[in-house]
Amino acid sequence: LNSQLSSLPTTIFTVMSALASEHGAINLGQGFPDTEGPRHLAEVAAASLLDGRNQYAPLTGLPELREAVTRSNSRFHGLIIDAAREVVVTSGATEALAACLAALLQPGDEVVVIEPAYDTYLPIIRLLGAVPRLVRLTPPEWSLPREELAAAFGPKTKAIVLNSPMNPTGKVFTREELDFIAGLVAQHDTYAICDEVYEHLTFGAPHIPLMTLPNMRDRCLRIGSAGKSFSMTGWKVGYITASAPLASVVAKAHQNLTFATPPNLQRAVAAGLEQDTSYFTMLADDMRLRRDILASGLREIGFDVLPCHGTYFLTADISRLGSIVQPGEDDIAWCKRMTQEAGVALIPVSAFYDAAGGPPPRNLVRFAFCKKPDILEQAVTRLRDRI
Amino acid sequence: LNSQLSSLPTTIFTVMSALASEHGAINLGQGFPDTEGPRHLAEVAAASLLDGRNQYAPLTGLPELREAVTRSNSRFHGLIIDAAREVVVTSGATEALAACLAALLQPGDEVVVIEPAYDTYLPIIRLLGAVPRLVRLTPPEWSLPREELAAAFGPKTKAIVLNSPMNPTGKVFTREELDFIAGLVAQHDTYAICDEVYEHLTFGAPHIPLMTLPNMRDRCLRIGSAGKSFSMTGWKVGYITASAPLASVVAKAHQNLTFATPPNLQRAVAAGLEQDTSYFTMLADDMRLRRDILASGLREIGFDVLPCHGTYFLTADISRLGSIVQPGEDDIAWCKRMTQEAGVALIPVSAFYDAAGGPPPRNLVRFAFCKKPDILEQAVTRLRDRI
Ligand SMILES: CSCCC(=O)C(=O)O
Ligand SMILES: CSCCC(=O)C(=O)O
Repeated sequence: LNSQLSSLPTTIFTVMSALASEHGAINLGQGFPDTEGPRHLAEVAAASLLDGRNQYAPLTGLPELREAVTRSNSRFHGLIIDAAREVVVTSGATEALAACLAALLQPGDEVVVIEPAYDTYLPIIRLLGAVPRLVRLTPPEWSLPREELAAAFGPKTKAIVLNSPMNPTGKVFTREELDFIAGLVAQHDTYAICDEVYEHLTFGAPHIPLMTLPNMRDRCLRIGSAGKSFSMTGWKVGYITASAPLASVVAKAHQNLTFATPPNLQRAVAAGLEQDTSYFTMLADDMRLRRDILASGLREIGFDVLPCHGTYFLTADISRLGSIVQPGEDDIAWCKRMTQEAGVALIPVSAFYDAAGGPPPRNLVRFAFCKKPDILEQAVTRLRDRI
Repeated sequence: LNSQLSSLPTTIFTVMSALASEHGAINLGQGFPDTEGPRHLAEVAAASLLDGRNQYAPLTGLPELREAVTRSNSRFHGLIIDAAREVVVTSGATEALAACLAALLQPGDEVVVIEPAYDTYLPIIRLLGAVPRLVRLTPPEWSLPREELAAAFGPKTKAIVLNSPMNPTGKVFTREELDFIAGLVAQHDTYAICDEVYEHLTFGAPHIPLMTLPNMRDRCLRIGSAGKSFSMTGWKVGYITASAPLASVVAKAHQNLTFATPPNLQRAVAAGLEQDTSYFTMLADDMRLRRDILASGLREIGFDVLPCHGTYFLTADISRLGSIVQPGEDDIAWCKRMTQEAGVALIPVSAFYDAAGGPPPRNLVRFAFCKKPDILEQAVTRLRDRI
């Protein structure tokens, strides 16, 4: 069997969700909203199932969804995209990532990955015979170590994976940081896979797609997610925006990975993307409210909460919670114990680090705050009672 | 960019469907029914969208679908399967294939592939750094060259991909052929990826999963498809049945390829699998009727129709259609010309062969007969008028 895959742990999200349901815990682990997305989108999806269009969608997606992606790129970022040749719809952003990596990489190529990193990046890179070059952000500000990043690029570099707004850190890369990254991408004649699934979830800090920077238009593969933007994580509809030569190879990867994506969900996602800008503003405002409830609650009971400018994740340092953290206990054991004892499931941030980069931080945990305000408050209460 | 992918042609199914719609042709190319699957399944899928369960499904699938797959294995084949540990739901059979191949293969491993072969097998095998060993069936009976098959197995063989009922040939492997294949799989201590997406579409010839043969239970990864079994090809729900040690690695691949599959569609597919046996009998009977309409119509106007015992595809030899086939014209050019001139889109069988195996047959075309009877008749009429 493939040793790379067989040695992988089950994803921490599944592990913690299973533990949460086993112990009836409030699940602030796996990142999914506990409130459904817009009812009218579910209705579009439902109506589309009943109108007799349940056969294969086109390989790169329904024209109406590709056009909606194009208009969204233009409306929010001034990007002029060709709906016919520069958009590929995928079965979720996870497939989008796999398809982009498969399209770019050859065995032996190197890929710069910034840690903490979402947990599918490295397995797919390695499955393709490519080599990750890891660069770690520095908590608590999650600052970018520019020299290290520059040193990670070299003659074998084919791409960087850039996740902004970033899971699990809540970091939104600044214009200056993006300029620096763009400089490296151009200088080394490489590409950027831009995982921007939280593009609409920022709190004050503007989200700037790397693709909008000078000379970056044709070097970026920009990934969006209906699950994240419309709070329907089960739908598994993703979309990639990339220059036509890149998109055509991504489409070949998609052709062999899943071929197509359910047409009824694509139609609903198209309707979602065409919503008034107010929908997106409200989504972010609403999430900011939840962030604030959770962050202030956690601070009150003694957590060191790290800054969070985007996504629906908040990280906190648990090392000063002397009475909670037991001697010798790492973040994983602590999260499991909190699930069992406090009834609150969290994600240990060390799960976003690879052993190849050395020992990960063991003092950080991630809270998903895409949950109802009273659930967030209840989680804080439950945690407080364990201190 | 990945040279293997970038050198791939766009799948012939997309090419011919696009050409068909450009020329208003009857599309007997890409294999999708022109009649929707059971309305009550679409209703289950639609209702599930509106009942507030649109977040991530579990990684390996909804329990109710895994149990339905288990019961289906038992009902139709007497296989005793553990729903919790031996079933993985995927985003279509294409993903199922990719996940099984990724789970089994390491770079340098060899995989025996029988040609004509579905067009995603080889790209995925090569993307994983593995090496296909091609064995060609012999038309017109699509007989299995046993010595060649035995010779294709060797010390580096990790798996065989076995597609039965087989696209595009309509072949259903016999018990004797399966015994022979099982012998090779056991003797060389390898695995079989069993693409059985047309398991319910056989016409007299019984479909025997390789997995049911002695010693094959734990060596087979058996793939099913809701699209094919319930005539909803757009839904992209597949399922893999495999021993727990295999399934656990397949789940790791799936985790990184798409992670999960839309829950509303999974619920509908579970309902589909739980239907009375009569549903499946009627599906096959109905398809057999269509096969007969098309086959006799084609024979009447001069085609050499090859035997077809399963799937919804029929192959025919065009080499004796002297007045139709133009000098120097291959099957691809002929199919394109028929789409334009006769208004009937077909698939050239040479598209199912890899150049690595030598020149493919150029005298065979594939018709999809999962279309309304009057459409099939109309297609025959249109073709006749071009002769
Ligand atoms: C695909 S399950 C994980 C969901 C998620 O993005 C997260 O929790 O980080
Ligand atoms: C995934 S598009 C091709 C459908 C099909 O299985 C075929 O036509 O062979």
